[in-house]
Amino acid sequence: MSATETTRQLIDRVEAWIEEQNAVALADCFRNLPVDETILVASRLDTDDQILLLELLPPDVSVDVLHALPFASASDLVEEISPASAAEILGEMPPSEQADLVGEMQPEQAEAVLALLDESNARRVKSLVRYPDDVAGGLMDNHFLALSRDLTVAAAIESIRQRASELSDYDVQYVYVRDVQNSLVGVLRLRDLLLASDETRLDRVMITNPRSVNDYLPLDDLREFFTEHQYLGVPVVNESGQMMGVVNRTAVEQALGERNADEFLKARGIIQEELRTMPLITRSRRRLMWLSANIVLNVIAASVIAAYEETLQQVIALAVFLPIISDMSGCSGNQAVAVSMRELSLGLVEPREVMRVWLKEVSVGIINGFALGVLLAGLAWLWQGNVWLGGVVGLALMINTTVAVSIGGTLPLIMKLLRLDPALASGPILTTVTDLFGFFLVLGMATQVLHLLK
Amino acid sequence: MSATETTRQLIDRVEAWIEEQNAVALADCFRNLPVDETILVASRLDTDDQILLLELLPPDVSVDVLHALPFASASDLVEEISPASAAEILGEMPPSEQADLVGEMQPEQAEAVLALLDESNARRVKSLVRYPDDVAGGLMDNHFLALSRDLTVAAAIESIRQRASELSDYDVQYVYVRDVQNSLVGVLRLRDLLLASDETRLDRVMITNPRSVNDYLPLDDLREFFTEHQYLGVPVVNESGQMMGVVNRTAVEQALGERNADEFLKARGIIQEELRTMPLITRSRRRLMWLSANIVLNVIAASVIAAYEETLQQVIALAVFLPIISDMSGCSGNQAVAVSMRELSLGLVEPREVMRVWLKEVSVGIINGFALGVLLAGLAWLWQGNVWLGGVVGLALMINTTVAVSIGGTLPLIMKLLRLDPALASGPILTTVTDLFGFFLVLGMATQVLHLLK
Repeated sequence: MSATETTRQLIDRVEAWIEEQNAVALADCFRNLPVDETILVASRLDTDDQILLLELLPPDVSVDVLHALPFASASDLVEEISPASAAEILGEMPPSEQADLVGEMQPEQAEAVLALLDESNARRVKSLVRYPDDVAGGLMDNHFLALSRDLTVAAAIESIRQRASELSDYDVQYVYVRDVQNSLVGVLRLRDLLLASDETRLDRVMITNPRSVNDYLPLDDLREFFTEHQYLGVPVVNESGQMMGVVNRTAVEQALGERNADEFLKARGIIQEELRTMPLITRSRRRLMWLSANIVLNVIAASVIAAYEETLQQVIALAVFLPIISDMSGCSGNQAVAVSMRELSLGLVEPREVMRVWLKEVSVGIINGFALGVLLAGLAWLWQGNVWLGGVVGLALMINTTVAVSIGGTLPLIMKLLRLDPALASGPILTTVTDLFGFFLVLGMATQVLHLLK
Repeated sequence: MSATETTRQLIDRVEAWIEEQNAVALADCFRNLPVDETILVASRLDTDDQILLLELLPPDVSVDVLHALPFASASDLVEEISPASAAEILGEMPPSEQADLVGEMQPEQAEAVLALLDESNARRVKSLVRYPDDVAGGLMDNHFLALSRDLTVAAAIESIRQRASELSDYDVQYVYVRDVQNSLVGVLRLRDLLLASDETRLDRVMITNPRSVNDYLPLDDLREFFTEHQYLGVPVVNESGQMMGVVNRTAVEQALGERNADEFLKARGIIQEELRTMPLITRSRRRLMWLSANIVLNVIAASVIAAYEETLQQVIALAVFLPIISDMSGCSGNQAVAVSMRELSLGLVEPREVMRVWLKEVSVGIINGFALGVLLAGLAWLWQGNVWLGGVVGLALMINTTVAVSIGGTLPLIMKLLRLDPALASGPILTTVTDLFGFFLVLGMATQVLHLLK
């Protein structure tokens, strides 16, 4: 069984229409397709068909198709279609989304598309493209409603009424009030405007000294801002106090959600966002890069075993316990990584507090190490009938669990201090070090008491 | 170095004030504390001090403290403080948050607190508590603005004006329009109200047949809804068509973000949300439960090694490669798990499509298995000078990588089909099976060609 029969049939029909260039049937089909079907159908077409589809559909429907696809796929596609189609489709998006897509293009393609956008829109997009994705400027929408402070409520409503059609694409929440220098001086909720009398000047009903954020404020600080304040959006101002746009709460929450999902992938060596619709070779290569580095680290760790071949030769049962100690230490260490990552992301711990986290973590390590060590010692004793063998593997696991949680708990903080990605901590670095040390403990101690183990 | 000097000093001061029951100083301090400091200070107090703090602070400040803490900590605390204080603090929250907290309480404590809330609020909270957290009813806010369809715009504005102070705590986005049976018949954006003339009846300016969702609609379907529609919120109706509340986009995005973060923890055996401020024994016990199950599975897998002790005795070098094959297969399998989890959460694959995913994944497995197998074979050959040894470990890794990605890619889908949590797939089940099979491959093949390895 592959896709459902109906999904399969639908894909076949869509492919046929694309081949016939039947724009009407395609528009009709995708306009009425629920979003989950759109995702399935659009993501399963091959790239050539996806490109043709986007060029054949009316721009407002193409936008829905692009929205349904993961961002990486959407940006790859927009780069492949003709600049004219791309510009038409971008015209249907808010400037921040346009900037995200243009930011992913090759410079020439970006230039070609920007030249075809209408001038004010192109200017907006250009001013957004220069910001990194994870600062206020990169997350903001620069389409906002700003009115002069000396307008009356009636004049403000009249001005909004005139721009009603332009505004209808945006969920306007607040009206921003500016002075003659274009600096932000106040903010008005639509409700305030609704409840005020016609002749009141805006600066009498606005909330003065509105909070704003700097255009280079990082995502984590924005998260804190929206935790602290129950706003739907916050104005973004540049160095000289001019209002550049609005960061909405939803944009921040979406970016945080994506970062979370990213960490899950990164911890497993899926650095770029892989999808099974990508070419086989791309997918294999990306995973292999990480795996090859990992196998080298594995060989380094295993070389400790080779150094003790003589001990192993005499007590072959030790070979049974090496993978157990390697795996269990890795698991304990990864638990500590997960807790540290969560505490970092909730702001419960600061990167500098390595010592505090280590003290908290080492206590868990000693307790769990003791419990797991005793368990493994008992199993080994029962199995091999040698209490000393039990003692060696149990003590090794005990010590190595403590080492693993110590490293696992503090590594994400240290990575953060070094401005590296803490999500990468849980993988190869941790397991290589705990393997090295674990093998050394088991085999080193066994060598010391070799005569008792035989 | 533990916390910053100033944070430490601040905590000491707060502890002193709590001891002196200095409510004024505490209120003054926490009212002006930035949210990141609030998190650090509040989370580091011991539980008794946290309880006293919440009881000493004015309710509107206590709410900020609770918001700063992770939900699990906040709900534990609210359960510990006196019902009178709890009711006062809950009174400062929207009903959906109250319901989340009340839902976590023991029944008697919940009864006591509900009895102290004002009647209409208590009714709202009770109607929310019965919904699970991950359906529309559990995510909705049941504080909304509904007006009768035959009101004029002027009367509607007058009615909103009268309720202005009550509404000021809520970010009202839409006005819902109901008929005499209390059924939802339309929706109005505040902007529409602002732009309409005074004498117009609401049902002339409202958007008719508004989209709504059922109160038991699951989170994933809500995600699809908000992907499909650019709304800020959607009305929730029960079976009989009555409007129950509003699910906001932010509530859905927040719930999805939390679920993502949860998966990261679950995959590492941190099932309950652990924080380092929790008692040591709780933290150790939770991690140990998972680790103990894991060590048993590890022992089962390692027992394959024990069954081949004789082979191992004769070719001791094999022991070096067992942990490598175990670790590398686990990594490859976990990459496949991560990609499947992501595709599931993006809606790019349906749980029934096990066969399709397997076909996509097995191709990557064969390519990567081949590359890693050749690499390991080469290393083994160079190291031990025996081409047959290289062949055995290389071939074993090759086959086992293919097995690992096959299991890893399909297991999350199978878990989902069986209505189990796919996040649990990547842990012990996967590694136990790949370890078992990997050890069996290396040692089984080595036994077959034993005379060539010596």
